[in-house]
Amino acid sequence: MTAPRPYLMEEMTWEEVRDAAAAGLPAVLGIGSTEQHGPHLPLNTNAVIPTEIALAAAQITPLVVAPPIHYGAMSRPLIGGGERFPGTVSLRAATLIDTIREVLLGLAKSGFRKLCLFNWHYENAAYLWEAADLAAAARSDIRVLVIEHPMPDFSPAELSELFPNGFTGWNFEHASHLETSIMYVLRPDLVRRDRIADDRAARAPDWDMVPPPDDYIPRSGVLMKPTDASEEAGQRFLEASVNRLVTAIRTEFGEP
Amino acid sequence: MTAPRPYLMEEMTWEEVRDAAAAGLPAVLGIGSTEQHGPHLPLNTNAVIPTEIALAAAQITPLVVAPPIHYGAMSRPLIGGGERFPGTVSLRAATLIDTIREVLLGLAKSGFRKLCLFNWHYENAAYLWEAADLAAAARSDIRVLVIEHPMPDFSPAELSELFPNGFTGWNFEHASHLETSIMYVLRPDLVRRDRIADDRAARAPDWDMVPPPDDYIPRSGVLMKPTDASEEAGQRFLEASVNRLVTAIRTEFGEP
Amino acid sequence: MTAPRPYLMEEMTWEEVRDAAAAGLPAVLGIGSTEQHGPHLPLNTNAVIPTEIALAAAQITPLVVAPPIHYGAMSRPLIGGGERFPGTVSLRAATLIDTIREVLLGLAKSGFRKLCLFNWHYENAAYLWEAADLAAAARSDIRVLVIEHPMPDFSPAELSELFPNGFTGWNFEHASHLETSIMYVLRPDLVRRDRIADDRAARAPDWDMVPPPDDYIPRSGVLMKPTDASEEAGQRFLEASVNRLVTAIRTEFGEP
Amino acid sequence: MTAPRPYLMEEMTWEEVRDAAAAGLPAVLGIGSTEQHGPHLPLNTNAVIPTEIALAAAQITPLVVAPPIHYGAMSRPLIGGGERFPGTVSLRAATLIDTIREVLLGLAKSGFRKLCLFNWHYENAAYLWEAADLAAAARSDIRVLVIEHPMPDFSPAELSELFPNGFTGWNFEHASHLETSIMYVLRPDLVRRDRIADDRAARAPDWDMVPPPDDYIPRSGVLMKPTDASEEAGQRFLEASVNRLVTAIRTEFGEP
Amino acid sequence: MTAPRPYLMEEMTWEEVRDAAAAGLPAVLGIGSTEQHGPHLPLNTNAVIPTEIALAAAQITPLVVAPPIHYGAMSRPLIGGGERFPGTVSLRAATLIDTIREVLLGLAKSGFRKLCLFNWHYENAAYLWEAADLAAAARSDIRVLVIEHPMPDFSPAELSELFPNGFTGWNFEHASHLETSIMYVLRPDLVRRDRIADDRAARAPDWDMVPPPDDYIPRSGVLMKPTDASEEAGQRFLEASVNRLVTAIRTEFGEP
Amino acid sequence: MTAPRPYLMEEMTWEEVRDAAAAGLPAVLGIGSTEQHGPHLPLNTNAVIPTEIALAAAQITPLVVAPPIHYGAMSRPLIGGGERFPGTVSLRAATLIDTIREVLLGLAKSGFRKLCLFNWHYENAAYLWEAADLAAAARSDIRVLVIEHPMPDFSPAELSELFPNGFTGWNFEHASHLETSIMYVLRPDLVRRDRIADDRAARAPDWDMVPPPDDYIPRSGVLMKPTDASEEAGQRFLEASVNRLVTAIRTEFGEP
Repeated sequence: MTAPRPYLMEEMTWEEVRDAAAAGLPAVLGIGSTEQHGPHLPLNTNAVIPTEIALAAAQITPLVVAPPIHYGAMSRPLIGGGERFPGTVSLRAATLIDTIREVLLGLAKSGFRKLCLFNWHYENAAYLWEAADLAAAARSDIRVLVIEHPMPDFSPAELSELFPNGFTGWNFEHASHLETSIMYVLRPDLVRRDRIADDRAARAPDWDMVPPPDDYIPRSGVLMKPTDASEEAGQRFLEASVNRLVTAIRTEFGEP
Repeated sequence: MTAPRPYLMEEMTWEEVRDAAAAGLPAVLGIGSTEQHGPHLPLNTNAVIPTEIALAAAQITPLVVAPPIHYGAMSRPLIGGGERFPGTVSLRAATLIDTIREVLLGLAKSGFRKLCLFNWHYENAAYLWEAADLAAAARSDIRVLVIEHPMPDFSPAELSELFPNGFTGWNFEHASHLETSIMYVLRPDLVRRDRIADDRAARAPDWDMVPPPDDYIPRSGVLMKPTDASEEAGQRFLEASVNRLVTAIRTEFGEP
Repeated sequence: MTAPRPYLMEEMTWEEVRDAAAAGLPAVLGIGSTEQHGPHLPLNTNAVIPTEIALAAAQITPLVVAPPIHYGAMSRPLIGGGERFPGTVSLRAATLIDTIREVLLGLAKSGFRKLCLFNWHYENAAYLWEAADLAAAARSDIRVLVIEHPMPDFSPAELSELFPNGFTGWNFEHASHLETSIMYVLRPDLVRRDRIADDRAARAPDWDMVPPPDDYIPRSGVLMKPTDASEEAGQRFLEASVNRLVTAIRTEFGEP
Repeated sequence: MTAPRPYLMEEMTWEEVRDAAAAGLPAVLGIGSTEQHGPHLPLNTNAVIPTEIALAAAQITPLVVAPPIHYGAMSRPLIGGGERFPGTVSLRAATLIDTIREVLLGLAKSGFRKLCLFNWHYENAAYLWEAADLAAAARSDIRVLVIEHPMPDFSPAELSELFPNGFTGWNFEHASHLETSIMYVLRPDLVRRDRIADDRAARAPDWDMVPPPDDYIPRSGVLMKPTDASEEAGQRFLEASVNRLVTAIRTEFGEP
Repeated sequence: MTAPRPYLMEEMTWEEVRDAAAAGLPAVLGIGSTEQHGPHLPLNTNAVIPTEIALAAAQITPLVVAPPIHYGAMSRPLIGGGERFPGTVSLRAATLIDTIREVLLGLAKSGFRKLCLFNWHYENAAYLWEAADLAAAARSDIRVLVIEHPMPDFSPAELSELFPNGFTGWNFEHASHLETSIMYVLRPDLVRRDRIADDRAARAPDWDMVPPPDDYIPRSGVLMKPTDASEEAGQRFLEASVNRLVTAIRTEFGEP
Repeated sequence: MTAPRPYLMEEMTWEEVRDAAAAGLPAVLGIGSTEQHGPHLPLNTNAVIPTEIALAAAQITPLVVAPPIHYGAMSRPLIGGGERFPGTVSLRAATLIDTIREVLLGLAKSGFRKLCLFNWHYENAAYLWEAADLAAAARSDIRVLVIEHPMPDFSPAELSELFPNGFTGWNFEHASHLETSIMYVLRPDLVRRDRIADDRAARAPDWDMVPPPDDYIPRSGVLMKPTDASEEAGQRFLEASVNRLVTAIRTEFGEP
């Protein structure tokens, strides 16, 4: 019989949460999605990754990992494939903002004063700040760290090493090299290796159209090159994101 | 390496969801909570249980288990200990209704026409119907099975067998015999056996007060007798609830 | 010329309300509906009954009866016949919650600190607590007694005496024995005696379906046996409910 | 035993409503308030009056009188005394709009296609049109007659006859000559004749201030001269308003 | 190169706003619309006029003119031509109320304590008070002057001088004598003189219908007699409205 | 007397809008803010710039410029100085989304089918897509071009030419080189040249904190180097943004 993971709030009892909050630990709320990730990755990719990154960070600096948000903002074709794919199930922005605001206030009521929103779904980005601002307006004793983009800025040298076949921007890394590599590490059982194939939209301008033209949507839901993926790259991506989270928390909330 | 569980939507790919929906499978959305369950059960008790019951039902009648709702309606002292316990993190009713409505519509967009809301948090009960009604008003091609109470009616004989020290109502079974027994079966690693102790509110009338008087709230968060719990009872409770779910689905949606 | 009824707030002047609030009287807000009650009872059955019960309670313990909520939550087929019947006119849950919250706050602004929500429409039940909780969050000087179910628990002996042809649950007592008997007492002029007939849904499972299957809906809107009704039973039902209201108020708010 | 009033929807059964709607009758929804009306008139003045006017109109042209809205828009000092008076209990504009919209849609679902909002609370005025417009956007088969001001334009001669001591505008007729006279006719039992006294705000500009300065608020809640009131004037006011309602309905919906 | 207009907030810097607020100046928020004004006036008529009136008032009593609300409440046929005209673009009441509330709170955050809502679009009228009341509920240190009707009461002599061909009420002055005359003064470049023609609805009762009958809507969008317009009348109308605004501000907020 | 600008919707009449929509012209809605722009730029900088860019684009490809949104999303310290500066007046996200949605639907009702949201306030970005998606869900005959970032991607060579003292990202260009240069061209009368000074936050991480630490906020509200500004650069920035807008419109909506 395994033991509960000590920093995973959903496996904790209320007394353990009480004690963790009393000890001044930060609480990290991962903001994910239930969203297509190509023919080879599961729908929970965006919920698994921030949860595991936060748990890894907890090994370095103590923190509590709250149950992540599993349903996120509407998927947009140019960065997530869009809402036409079966299995993509999303919330309207107003509902997502309210949800995050209320969860933040619930964590505050539980005793946490150092709160962190840790996003792993591009489309959620702008709603986090709004939710944090509304929560902070409701009670003045909390501080909320908002991490919209979970990856740090890599140097050009690092990027060309990590993306030997070229880096076209994090926004195209949906169901591609980044996420496939990380899932090799975190949940290899959920990666359908025989289904990995590169794909891309026929057209991907730096503006957007609603409703999306057909040529904005890659047939498979993959936006770039998952065939570049490797477990080794996954380790490096994870390490970079974990370090970024730890650094942000220590910078803003102080050493534990 | 384990394989993905075939009916757990969060581990499926979008193509698998597409195919399951096209085959006419129902989708079951568990409605849980993040809520104190005494000193011995984890906060995710109400999310784990409906998910596992639905997965067990899927072994009998094919269905897809959608990612459950992890944050539910505000905990009420007389049936869940209430909002004063750390670790209880809840949503306002309006947010919960909107969330369930939008997830139902997202599942419908994914191709599912037979939808089921399967509740394991008493306080959620009334909001399910409203969300289902709003979703059905938005699109007329879905049917939603609403299961507010996950346990069937037992006969007096069954009840006295299952509750040898007396049955006082399902509403008091929070963090008590029922849930502890089931967690013995489903997640024994998460049950703190050395922390199990009976408790109850000093006063529990059949009306309610807001804000709650102190004597409505049991000190430990346990409402009745978890010391009655046993793995054997857990198996029986689970079987009863699985059968009820299967029966409801087959009755309303037809044999697969 | 009759005189105004002294505890009926809608017939009071503002000075009388001011004085009643200053005297520490509780204010009771009946939560009803405008809803079909079979071919023999009027649409206002659920508004008349809680108002008259509260007025009767006021003869025992002083309290003020606020204007009741006339439009309630959507009628559900298995407990109220449902929204397909002409004359059933209902509010969405969010609107009902907001309404009750704002009326509670208006009563608080009027000086009342002891507030009671007294429900006589099954479908309203869960929304009362939410509205009370929101009101109590807005001002900390009020206490709200929430009575979702207006009838007390009868002993089996009492039940078999009151329901000589069998008791199948309060939820089936819509437009049936309970309500017809009470209306015989309160408003006999509104009971169409020649139209009383038993009826029931062809099927009434303990789950629900949205939209409702036809066999969930009794043709007449009657869910059980109004032919059991008698004025004598009505008196007993009324007395039981009045006593329950008085007991709850005295228990939670103290003797006047 | 009296008989139910045939056009009062709350006393009708669902079958009677069905038949009335099928016969093409209009449904009139009175929009009132629960609001101070000086030391001599009851809080339900604004609900009683439109209900009785609509019932009187029903004697001339068949129509159904729906249960009125008892809680209206926030009272404004210069036209209703304002929210500081105990017993004034009001809704926010958004809640009122939603309520009226949903009641209109419920009446439409019941079969009525000719709907009328009949207002007797100045502050409600602008919200009626919005609610009607939202309802008409939701279903295109209804037409809504919006009567914001229930009194017709009188000629100067008529005005000086009706208001022998001077007419200063309908907006000042709160709890004054108009309403007191009408209540003499409709509910003389509710008029506290010994408490009638003229009053007025020390200052009543034709703009407004929020929050209200003290000199905007008459001490008694009376805005003008209830001592002018007489039963005879009440009869004339009623007749004028009934005729206006009948004329509007026949003009817009045609002869019955 | 012209200089910024000193009281026009949108042309001010943040330091200038800070200083103006610190000096105790009132801030005036014009509430306009984007709405058809016949074939001869531009869509921004209702935004230009209150802005310029407020700027003129600022020459007499110091005040800051906030960026006006350009999108107002839905146009109603009998007072604005209605929503069927291209170019009329409006907000729902709830959105307008929220907008005004939030702008008031933003101005308060900027340091202004004396706030004025100055309306020039009849349909907005009732929403201003609600927004002001909500803002004042959120912070108790502000006072909001609400001017729903921007024109003063003229004496009959003044009216017959100003409207030599008869005055039928301000509500009919949409795109007619009043507004055309004022635009002659303020923005003569935007008046299409060759397109001015009188018009009126075939029928204009003192109630309303939703959706509007065709005969409520004048073909051109003009409700009365713009051919009466003259620059001289425009000057007089402006002067009257400026004086009214100055008087209201000085009366309620004191001399500067 | 100048003539109305032919593509500026607020100066058009309803007939001109009708004709423009009938001719298939796109309508561009600028999304701006009322926000501090340092001691040298006016609060309307973010409303003036997109309006003028759209008008310039209209000289190249015919389009109609709708009245811009003057109140935008809450200012964030790291990209706009934040809400602590007087003169920054903003809307909550939900209100902004509703506003844009309703304006889009109003433009669609006016006959426009090709709609463009053109943003010049970083904080608005994510809300545009949501508003567009909601509008497109309400009517299927519109297409909405969403331009969140108004500047094209420059090559490194272009960037180093345009930013000779270094380019640190568009997000820091608030009240700095970009906007000051453009305002030199568009509204030189509104630039306080004697007040231009470089500034920056003491700390500007690539995450965010709510509420903002003091060292996130530059004292003057300037985020980078407005002393780099020149009219010549302004011309180049404008040209680039105009071309981007024209290209996007022609690409997505076709040649006029």
